[in-house]
Amino acid sequence: MKPFSERLHERIRQTDSRVCLGIDPRPEAHPLTHPERFGNDPAQVAKAVVNYFRAIIEATADTVACYKPQAAFFEALGIPGLIALAQLMADIRALRIPVILDAKRGDIGTTAAAYAQAYLGDGVFAADALTVNPYLGVDSLQPFVTQAVSAGRGLFVLVKTSNPGSRDFQDAPLASSQALYQRVAEAVAELAEVQHDRSGYSPIGAVVGATYPRELAALRRSLPHSLLLVPGYGAQGGSAEEVASAFDEQGLGAVVNASRGLTYTTTGDNFAERARQLTLAMRDDLNRAIQR
Amino acid sequence: MKPFSERLHERIRQTDSRVCLGIDPRPEAHPLTHPERFGNDPAQVAKAVVNYFRAIIEATADTVACYKPQAAFFEALGIPGLIALAQLMADIRALRIPVILDAKRGDIGTTAAAYAQAYLGDGVFAADALTVNPYLGVDSLQPFVTQAVSAGRGLFVLVKTSNPGSRDFQDAPLASSQALYQRVAEAVAELAEVQHDRSGYSPIGAVVGATYPRELAALRRSLPHSLLLVPGYGAQGGSAEEVASAFDEQGLGAVVNASRGLTYTTTGDNFAERARQLTLAMRDDLNRAIQR
Repeated sequence: MKPFSERLHERIRQTDSRVCLGIDPRPEAHPLTHPERFGNDPAQVAKAVVNYFRAIIEATADTVACYKPQAAFFEALGIPGLIALAQLMADIRALRIPVILDAKRGDIGTTAAAYAQAYLGDGVFAADALTVNPYLGVDSLQPFVTQAVSAGRGLFVLVKTSNPGSRDFQDAPLASSQALYQRVAEAVAELAEVQHDRSGYSPIGAVVGATYPRELAALRRSLPHSLLLVPGYGAQGGSAEEVASAFDEQGLGAVVNASRGLTYTTTGDNFAERARQLTLAMRDDLNRAIQR
Repeated sequence: MKPFSERLHERIRQTDSRVCLGIDPRPEAHPLTHPERFGNDPAQVAKAVVNYFRAIIEATADTVACYKPQAAFFEALGIPGLIALAQLMADIRALRIPVILDAKRGDIGTTAAAYAQAYLGDGVFAADALTVNPYLGVDSLQPFVTQAVSAGRGLFVLVKTSNPGSRDFQDAPLASSQALYQRVAEAVAELAEVQHDRSGYSPIGAVVGATYPRELAALRRSLPHSLLLVPGYGAQGGSAEEVASAFDEQGLGAVVNASRGLTYTTTGDNFAERARQLTLAMRDDLNRAIQR
């Protein structure tokens, strides 16, 4: 398989879209998937969730760079939820659109290797890229890196997340006068330096929130070989101007995520058409800000 | 439901065991579960895994404080693996033995709440306690704390993990002259302080590796209201003497995990009886070290 960075960049060029559409099923948020409609039968709720997001994927497939299912919302629906996740990921793969699984996994040794096999292997949950948590250290990232490199997949290591609480530990000032997240970024940059290809990009990317625009601009410079996955646009308050600095001079090197701000904006039957219109508006908003 | 700490302590008193037996299925590690035996059919492999660990649970039920399935190894087996996880967790719950799910989840806001619902709610993956990753900050722990407190469940926040790479970020020296993990421990102590009951223990525990005995002893003191989950005994090199400091003066307040060192020590059919003998030996080894 071609490297993930290459495949993502091809998609961005084809669609002229840098939107990563987040798939975060909240069955209660729309009458068509509401558990009460199905007497709280988990299998039927999960089926309705699949139909809901299939409609959104169909309506948005030519307007997004990639999709990003959030594992937590599927896991909360139990076994039927995980079957729904596998089905939606298969649908997205069949369309040859990159899929980033947002599962924020992190563990050590053979346990990390098991996660890498689950999400960057060839099983039913096979994703093009996976989000991972660095708290356990560089050796905990290594099995993910090995698998991503050998299978043409990508990683997005949490560096500076979009929530206010990211200040607690990520911003902790180190004796070296860096913040912790900057040390994490250094480790990511070292891994990415070794692995980058002729395009300049490596399989080892980073998650950096749109809600910290100064940090985002600085991390773009200190992570020259890393794709950035940027959450926090829209619902969480990040503007297109604030995320523009995530991109390189070619307007590549990053995708910007939005989830419920695109997928749960109406209780009407026109939710998929709304998702399309809002995704197009976000695409144009980002593109305008980048061209400035 | 009674608080998790109370239920765990009752179990420790009943069994006089502080062993947390880790359930880390590695189908290739035993002929009875080897994928080739089943033509690599995932459903049959998962079924064999359930039978393998059911035999171990039956043989060890009166010798352990609790069980700790590792989510990664089940996720690596796809949907049948997750069904196997649900089945084994149901078996353990039916025996009224505490089950800690080792999934190291961590996310923000409603996403964290979805994980808490998945693993500390009433669904098929309902555990008595869950391991969580603090990198995203205190606000990312809050939905887990809320759910654990209201449902009588427990959390084990990663503080200082057993791997060598835990030095990379967890040991990073802060400007305040603490290491990062000590700041994380302070945050855990604050959460636990508010929530502790008459027994002195709270639902908010910590993961501290047996491989760092000095840190373990210091964290026992700085986390007076937290149960400690201590990995790294045996296979990873921690001795009973080194983990003894994890316990309070009553010999309570902690459990020590071992996984493959108990469950994968023979390719023979006597694997369950071996697991029982080794668990008894570990129980006695820990108890001797604590009484000293």
